[in-house]
Amino acid sequence: MKILVIGGVALGPKAACRCKRLMPDADITLVDENVFISYGGCGLPYYISGEIQNLDDLRSTPYHTLRDPRFFAEMKGLKVRTQTRAMKIDRAAKTVLVRDVVTGAEEHLPYDKLVIATGATPRMPPVPGNDLQGVHSVTRLEAAGVIRKACQEGKVEKAVIVGAGFIGLEVAVALADMWGVECSVVEMMDQALPGVLSGTLGLMAAQDLDSHDVHLYASEKVLRLEGEDGRVTRVVTDKRELDAQLVIFAAGFLPNGQLARDAGLDVAPFGAIVVDEEMRTSDPDIYAGGDCVAIPNLVTGKTGYLPLGSMANRQGRVIGTNLAGGHATFPGYVGTWAVKLFDMSFCGVGLTVERARREGYDAVSVCVEQLDRAHFYPEKNMMSLELVVEKGTRRVLGMQGACTAGDALKARVDAVAAALQYAKPTLDDISNLEVCYAPPFASAMDVVNAVANVADNVLAGRMHPVTGAEFMELWQNRRENRVFFIDARPTAGSRTLEERFPGEWHGISLEDLAAGRLPDVPKDAPVALICNTGLRAYDSELILHRHGFTNVRNSMGGMQAVMKMGLKP
Amino acid sequence: MKILVIGGVALGPKAACRCKRLMPDADITLVDENVFISYGGCGLPYYISGEIQNLDDLRSTPYHTLRDPRFFAEMKGLKVRTQTRAMKIDRAAKTVLVRDVVTGAEEHLPYDKLVIATGATPRMPPVPGNDLQGVHSVTRLEAAGVIRKACQEGKVEKAVIVGAGFIGLEVAVALADMWGVECSVVEMMDQALPGVLSGTLGLMAAQDLDSHDVHLYASEKVLRLEGEDGRVTRVVTDKRELDAQLVIFAAGFLPNGQLARDAGLDVAPFGAIVVDEEMRTSDPDIYAGGDCVAIPNLVTGKTGYLPLGSMANRQGRVIGTNLAGGHATFPGYVGTWAVKLFDMSFCGVGLTVERARREGYDAVSVCVEQLDRAHFYPEKNMMSLELVVEKGTRRVLGMQGACTAGDALKARVDAVAAALQYAKPTLDDISNLEVCYAPPFASAMDVVNAVANVADNVLAGRMHPVTGAEFMELWQNRRENRVFFIDARPTAGSRTLEERFPGEWHGISLEDLAAGRLPDVPKDAPVALICNTGLRAYDSELILHRHGFTNVRNSMGGMQAVMKMGLKP
Repeated sequence: MKILVIGGVALGPKAACRCKRLMPDADITLVDENVFISYGGCGLPYYISGEIQNLDDLRSTPYHTLRDPRFFAEMKGLKVRTQTRAMKIDRAAKTVLVRDVVTGAEEHLPYDKLVIATGATPRMPPVPGNDLQGVHSVTRLEAAGVIRKACQEGKVEKAVIVGAGFIGLEVAVALADMWGVECSVVEMMDQALPGVLSGTLGLMAAQDLDSHDVHLYASEKVLRLEGEDGRVTRVVTDKRELDAQLVIFAAGFLPNGQLARDAGLDVAPFGAIVVDEEMRTSDPDIYAGGDCVAIPNLVTGKTGYLPLGSMANRQGRVIGTNLAGGHATFPGYVGTWAVKLFDMSFCGVGLTVERARREGYDAVSVCVEQLDRAHFYPEKNMMSLELVVEKGTRRVLGMQGACTAGDALKARVDAVAAALQYAKPTLDDISNLEVCYAPPFASAMDVVNAVANVADNVLAGRMHPVTGAEFMELWQNRRENRVFFIDARPTAGSRTLEERFPGEWHGISLEDLAAGRLPDVPKDAPVALICNTGLRAYDSELILHRHGFTNVRNSMGGMQAVMKMGLKP
Repeated sequence: MKILVIGGVALGPKAACRCKRLMPDADITLVDENVFISYGGCGLPYYISGEIQNLDDLRSTPYHTLRDPRFFAEMKGLKVRTQTRAMKIDRAAKTVLVRDVVTGAEEHLPYDKLVIATGATPRMPPVPGNDLQGVHSVTRLEAAGVIRKACQEGKVEKAVIVGAGFIGLEVAVALADMWGVECSVVEMMDQALPGVLSGTLGLMAAQDLDSHDVHLYASEKVLRLEGEDGRVTRVVTDKRELDAQLVIFAAGFLPNGQLARDAGLDVAPFGAIVVDEEMRTSDPDIYAGGDCVAIPNLVTGKTGYLPLGSMANRQGRVIGTNLAGGHATFPGYVGTWAVKLFDMSFCGVGLTVERARREGYDAVSVCVEQLDRAHFYPEKNMMSLELVVEKGTRRVLGMQGACTAGDALKARVDAVAAALQYAKPTLDDISNLEVCYAPPFASAMDVVNAVANVADNVLAGRMHPVTGAEFMELWQNRRENRVFFIDARPTAGSRTLEERFPGEWHGISLEDLAAGRLPDVPKDAPVALICNTGLRAYDSELILHRHGFTNVRNSMGGMQAVMKMGLKP
């Protein structure tokens, strides 16, 4: 059995090694057009920062064996040909035309089974000047080496990152935190981490960047790059000019589906190769996986795309099993992700509320701020969680969050992610979701249960939420809208603001409201409530409802959320 | 609508407050026989240690409002009667006879709906001397206060804890870590955390205790307590005598189901009240929840018992909703838990391999040692995970683990727990389980996927595992069993042991085995393999299989697991 694998970064070697373990007699050849194969591309930002010492660390096993072609030949029994580009698949002859990129020599390699693992290419916006020196994308080891060398040699004072997605922000953090480079991030969309974070959490990400002097310019477009002597010196956007000795494009990826398309295989409109549950293309002898394939989004039921190293590894194992005659399946994805910025980590799964609405769901989202552990436990972190729910069905469509404790946040998101993989969970399921409990790990009513409980209260009409940003907008426009603002915190908490805004910011603690300060609240005006995190404001809202106040708004996550977003009264 | 709630610690107040929010006109009375209500009993070990300053912190909201009877009266609109014991339920008259424990006055309280939240009582083994001063259980605030005071006053040099379950070990850690008390833990069963950890992970827990001078005496029974002047001075077991100025019984709980049983309600043989999915007892006007009820184990399908504050809180909300006319449900539990010892945290869900076998499953378990994050990321922690699988069906029955990073461990366990709640996941599901990925959070092939992959290899007969303890037993008996021991680590790793045990411990690295040292391995002897964590030993095993070696054993988790268990060659 001759097996040919095109592509040697993540999925290719995984599929080949798994197959070889199951079927030691298989004759497996792996070709890749680059010099380096089998590297952890996701680690490049940490090499740039210097946290990873050597590029070889990204090409090594956990016990420091270099995964070079010799390793795969001697230890895994594969034939590896680097600097060898696949040019054309001849499905009738069952051969692939390959070209040696050094000598130009061409050759037809035969196969019984073929694996396409061609990955994706960074999207490079067609702006003038993108070919200047000092302009990079961060997907190949070589580029990361050049960027770090320039930083080490003190040649980079200012950098512009184009794109506020995962890689763009990871690189901005690496440059700013470890090399003191003054970073600006230019993003076409209107927020940080567009598509995977709500506007609310996006503001928290922007605030974390801003408080470490990384400036996000959202809703802004790069028009051109300018340079001197062939080196970039400036980025010109539709709103400003930014000096830069280094420009990094991190504006997403395009799946490399052309080779498959040319061979007549099914390819999705956006360029990714279509595969079935067994990761087979429309030709049963050809598999494909990793960053070049389209896979089902298990939340929407539609075809989607999630180019992550973790997906490639799991799909690679499935393909390896199937190459050896098995019937492993890869059902699709729910869209988990994680990113660590400066103080804050962000994780998510499924749809944001904005994305859910674009997909046609009548969706609402609810944010809470709650400690990750028992509030009486000494070490603890405030966690922001936002749950996205379809109104009529109460179906949970996604959850995203922010926390200084990344693992604690990941725990909540991974639990909801597992529920989304095996069921169409409702609010009530998440309200009852059983997660490991002890005071050093969680509250008795964990934050993941709490966010579902709050959503339940919102859907039932017991709570009328506004986001922290909406609350602050009401506050800014208080002269026009005549909203009556109540700070429901204990008096000590609200005093400063009450003294600063006399007659406008009303410190009426929950206790005082319950004990008789109801007459202080005008019946004819809209009321906006805020407290520390939302608990007291909710109880205050219930008291107001009971006494006939119908136009009450409650700031979700309270002052905690407002401050995390970098807003202030 | 008159609602009466018996019990004011966790479930009672939760159910009452939830009901009152939904149905503000409800007339709700809560009775409790103790002085203090609504406290976080799970926090008592952290009060004993001093990490929590005041007992009041366990009775307060996150923003420091004391949850005393006045709080519930004024803020929540409940009638609270403490030091009031429920004596008898008259279901025909719909009244409860209560007695004032101070005055002895009795009274019949009427109800339309009743909630039984009587909790559980610590199991106090009937050993002579258990009524001496200095002998406690840790469930009530008062006992914790006495214990901490004794420590603060330097009156406790040595303590014996009876029971190596969650509370016993948390208290041992609190006493040893913060007060320098010399602690011994006596456990009747043969390991730490019996029932929730496998023998393998139990050894890791014992090693964490032992390396901090807390001594576990397993398979040992307390016969009597001895004292002087009415104060305990010594614990006598069937194997030794232990001096102690403090003895703490933490030998489990018995559900308080007698009141329900006396009223003719269905009660399980082990004493817990039987409830349906809506948390209703066999009388539709009487609900019960928390530590006094039996609920379905969703893994085994049998009736079970899980007395945890987190269960009580979630069940309380369900009861509160239903009291107000709703139809919330609580489907059961999968048995998640977490405990932090000294350096290590432990979490788990579902069945251990031993428990699964007792339940009649043809079960096997597989252990891995893998880093929680990408191996090239600078901050990372070795995680032990053990997956329990039914052989024929490949169904996952549980997972337990150990790690210095508690939240990272919780993330893996909670993801599997969610899968167990919504499906009957197989190995293949966990192999594909999608969890948040980025190098600061996980490996591209996460440890939770890896443990399923290893289990797949074991079930397929590609890998023949032994536990670290079994490997060391083979090693100890090497003169008799003639096993040939191979250390597959790179030569630098195996050299020390090879020099110490010449001709017995054979350093044959995976590379050397692949490159031609096969003839060094005798064909007629059993072979036992070990490496760092198991990866290299697996590849070595595959090479040996290909060359006709059939009697090969592979030490799961390699030297990492062996060392964590406190074993050494």
